[in-house]
Amino acid sequence: MNQNRILQPTTIVIFGATGDLAKRKLFPAFYNLYIDGRMPKGFNIVALGRAENTNENFRNYIKENLESFSRKKVTSEDWAGFQAHITYFQHQLDEESSYHNLQQKLQDFDSVYGVRANRLFYLSIGPNFIATISNHIKTTSLASDPKKDRIIIEKPFGHNKQSAIELNSLLAKTFEEEQIYRIDHYLGKETVQNILAFRFGNSIFEPLWDHKYIESVQITVAEEVGVETRGAFYEQTGALRDMIQNHLLQILCMVAMEPPASLLSGEIRDRKVDVLKSIRRISSDQVEHYAVRGQYGKGTINGVEVKGYRQEDGIASDSNTETFAAIKFYLDNERWQDVPFYVRTGKKMKEKHSYITIQFKPLPHSTFSDSPHHLSANRLIINIQPMMDIRLQFMTKKPGLTLDLKPAEMIFDNFACKEDTPEAYETLLQDALLGDLTLFMRSDQVEEAWDVVTTIQEAWENNKDLSFPNYKAGSWGPEDVNALVERQGHSWV
Amino acid sequence: MNQNRILQPTTIVIFGATGDLAKRKLFPAFYNLYIDGRMPKGFNIVALGRAENTNENFRNYIKENLESFSRKKVTSEDWAGFQAHITYFQHQLDEESSYHNLQQKLQDFDSVYGVRANRLFYLSIGPNFIATISNHIKTTSLASDPKKDRIIIEKPFGHNKQSAIELNSLLAKTFEEEQIYRIDHYLGKETVQNILAFRFGNSIFEPLWDHKYIESVQITVAEEVGVETRGAFYEQTGALRDMIQNHLLQILCMVAMEPPASLLSGEIRDRKVDVLKSIRRISSDQVEHYAVRGQYGKGTINGVEVKGYRQEDGIASDSNTETFAAIKFYLDNERWQDVPFYVRTGKKMKEKHSYITIQFKPLPHSTFSDSPHHLSANRLIINIQPMMDIRLQFMTKKPGLTLDLKPAEMIFDNFACKEDTPEAYETLLQDALLGDLTLFMRSDQVEEAWDVVTTIQEAWENNKDLSFPNYKAGSWGPEDVNALVERQGHSWV
Repeated sequence: MNQNRILQPTTIVIFGATGDLAKRKLFPAFYNLYIDGRMPKGFNIVALGRAENTNENFRNYIKENLESFSRKKVTSEDWAGFQAHITYFQHQLDEESSYHNLQQKLQDFDSVYGVRANRLFYLSIGPNFIATISNHIKTTSLASDPKKDRIIIEKPFGHNKQSAIELNSLLAKTFEEEQIYRIDHYLGKETVQNILAFRFGNSIFEPLWDHKYIESVQITVAEEVGVETRGAFYEQTGALRDMIQNHLLQILCMVAMEPPASLLSGEIRDRKVDVLKSIRRISSDQVEHYAVRGQYGKGTINGVEVKGYRQEDGIASDSNTETFAAIKFYLDNERWQDVPFYVRTGKKMKEKHSYITIQFKPLPHSTFSDSPHHLSANRLIINIQPMMDIRLQFMTKKPGLTLDLKPAEMIFDNFACKEDTPEAYETLLQDALLGDLTLFMRSDQVEEAWDVVTTIQEAWENNKDLSFPNYKAGSWGPEDVNALVERQGHSWV
Repeated sequence: MNQNRILQPTTIVIFGATGDLAKRKLFPAFYNLYIDGRMPKGFNIVALGRAENTNENFRNYIKENLESFSRKKVTSEDWAGFQAHITYFQHQLDEESSYHNLQQKLQDFDSVYGVRANRLFYLSIGPNFIATISNHIKTTSLASDPKKDRIIIEKPFGHNKQSAIELNSLLAKTFEEEQIYRIDHYLGKETVQNILAFRFGNSIFEPLWDHKYIESVQITVAEEVGVETRGAFYEQTGALRDMIQNHLLQILCMVAMEPPASLLSGEIRDRKVDVLKSIRRISSDQVEHYAVRGQYGKGTINGVEVKGYRQEDGIASDSNTETFAAIKFYLDNERWQDVPFYVRTGKKMKEKHSYITIQFKPLPHSTFSDSPHHLSANRLIINIQPMMDIRLQFMTKKPGLTLDLKPAEMIFDNFACKEDTPEAYETLLQDALLGDLTLFMRSDQVEEAWDVVTTIQEAWENNKDLSFPNYKAGSWGPEDVNALVERQGHSWV
């Protein structure tokens, strides 16, 4: 589809270009797009940083990091071509003169291109700077062409529904909705995009994809890492805001959405908003029944003893922030009535593993001597990371002289060759360069997603959990998370 | 299920014990059942032959052949135990005195067991001897106990509907229907039995298993061999009688049958007869439209030049016998209305390959840029032999930056470890020892199956095919077989 569109000359401006995301994800993504011939013919990356620096110094720093973080090998030939597109530019976020200087710089590039280039502003900085930058961009007319200029914003998009609405209306003063690319890197993952291909590119799955045949859906995003150097940020955020409001709800939308008529971005985003709207809101007095929170204490991961959350840098010794959250959602629509969607995410878990489990209903009647409930359930497991495969679990004949059954598994590994599998940021940056909004969040998606978690968020803020820490680092979360699913006769798979 | 039933002492009498089937299949099957501890505590195999022979000689002959044909290794310890159960017995099929002697022999065994043992008569001989043997068994009261005595008969069960009815009523004079085990070794194959496990042990396939989701079914049994030493027999038989009337129609029944309430043999056999009854009969003037016949001429298989059928030993130089047959069947029932079942079988084909292809309907609408008809169809392929796996073909995301699709395949190989996979005859002989009739053909199944092919059989007998030979050895059959499926927009897969 997109791949044949001709890319216009583009100047990419990275706010926060000396930060972690830029070195680990953004420059490697641009570099790999460059190697694959997917960058525009004319392009420049303007890396903004507060300190004085030379192009040479900054380029060397990027090269060093590419060697650690690039998917494809850094060859001297490719690098020689790529590095010439990088310009370091000293810039103070809060000084208007800096934006005037930037405007001059961008116009200099335009005169070399011979056209007013597209401009892609990447805000790889804390959310508290968004207002400042957006306002300055407006007053200095940096993004004066709504057809050519785009802004990419990292999550979190606000810290609750009200602040998200405010942020959206603030951005709307400078940008049209079609210029705003709210990035959720989970949506760029090959395995997550494959949900669409799998569901809507085949005739055999969609007939099974509803409450008649599906017993439950589980979405797990388990992290082995803790808060690392982000303690101060995480302390204000927690698992619900950091993961569930965005990544897990977005995956839930991919699993639950109605078939879109086409891949046009508006169409897909409309179907996702439909899902978010259909999620049954959990009333304040029901939060305990539908949601479980946890905070890790000290424990052992892979044989190494690790600290508890309250002992990490920048964390209060009586912190009430959850590092684990699990919620049972119901969707009030025709397709999903009474099918529980269990989502869970946590830090310092037993292993890094993100996956979706679609569990099918048991047989209405078993022809075999076993009762249907003794047969293993049919399951479709979509592994997102680090494994990236699809597994179908079913029953088969046990080889031998009698007609007995045993569970079996078919595995399909589309992305076994990791070298060929683009990183999420490559996909998303290319889409942003092309102007394809499909995999980015629209304002109403963000606001609805906040709405879904509002009561839980408020309950957890207003009531300290006195059992914290309530799970050991290296475990699968607090005990209560099992009760959440066992009440329905289910178990985490 | 069966495996825990206690087996009664049994004397097995093999008519035709010096023949090809006995040495290649029957003794190896009994030997492997013996190693696995699945033979009755007390058992004897009485091997009948026309010539004089000693036990020692015959046992050595069996041992030699076991070394070629046994699935499991022949160890001296196992052999020492097993050989003591084999008795060679000189016997003339057409002399009543021989049967009296046999009765005496069986009674001698009974006095050693201390009980009247079960008796299992295996007719591993040409069909023209069935009447003689059956009558003598009756007059000499060899099978006097309808609860204990059983007869196993090899196909062909008659050569058309009328002769099958006659054969069945002849057998009925000596045996109750529950004593008659009409063997179709295809039904003993692990991969064929797995169709039941796959369909009825899982909740996700049966909802897709009808005319709403299935476009067509193909059943292929391709042989690389020709008629070998069986020319004279084959000349009177042909592919329709030798393969389609039994193996292919039986596989069709497994694919198309309604879910049985249980695995009880009557239940499964009833559901199979329902399928045979529902097959739309092809009127005499429509045979050419629904059926294609072929006969191989000379050609090349695996780089070796091979003779044509008419040049084989025992074949008429103007033979009208078909060595290839393909038929399009429709089933007039609720589940399968308008779904073509294409079956084909042939000798001297390009390769040995038996398999079933379930092709699903295209998507009603494609979300993707391709039209639904440009996407590869979803297919379930059940490989029967020599591969013994199940494959699910579907579309997936092509790894890369855009949402394009590519065909993919999940493979499940249940029987990868051939050492652990019993031969069809082991399964069937154990079932006969246990008295489980499920995998054997009931008289009405045989008669209905003949009825299905009657008009085709008559048309082909009455009209010579002047184009014979019409396919080259080493090909996939005559040209016309493609037209048979292409008329519906299909192709052989």
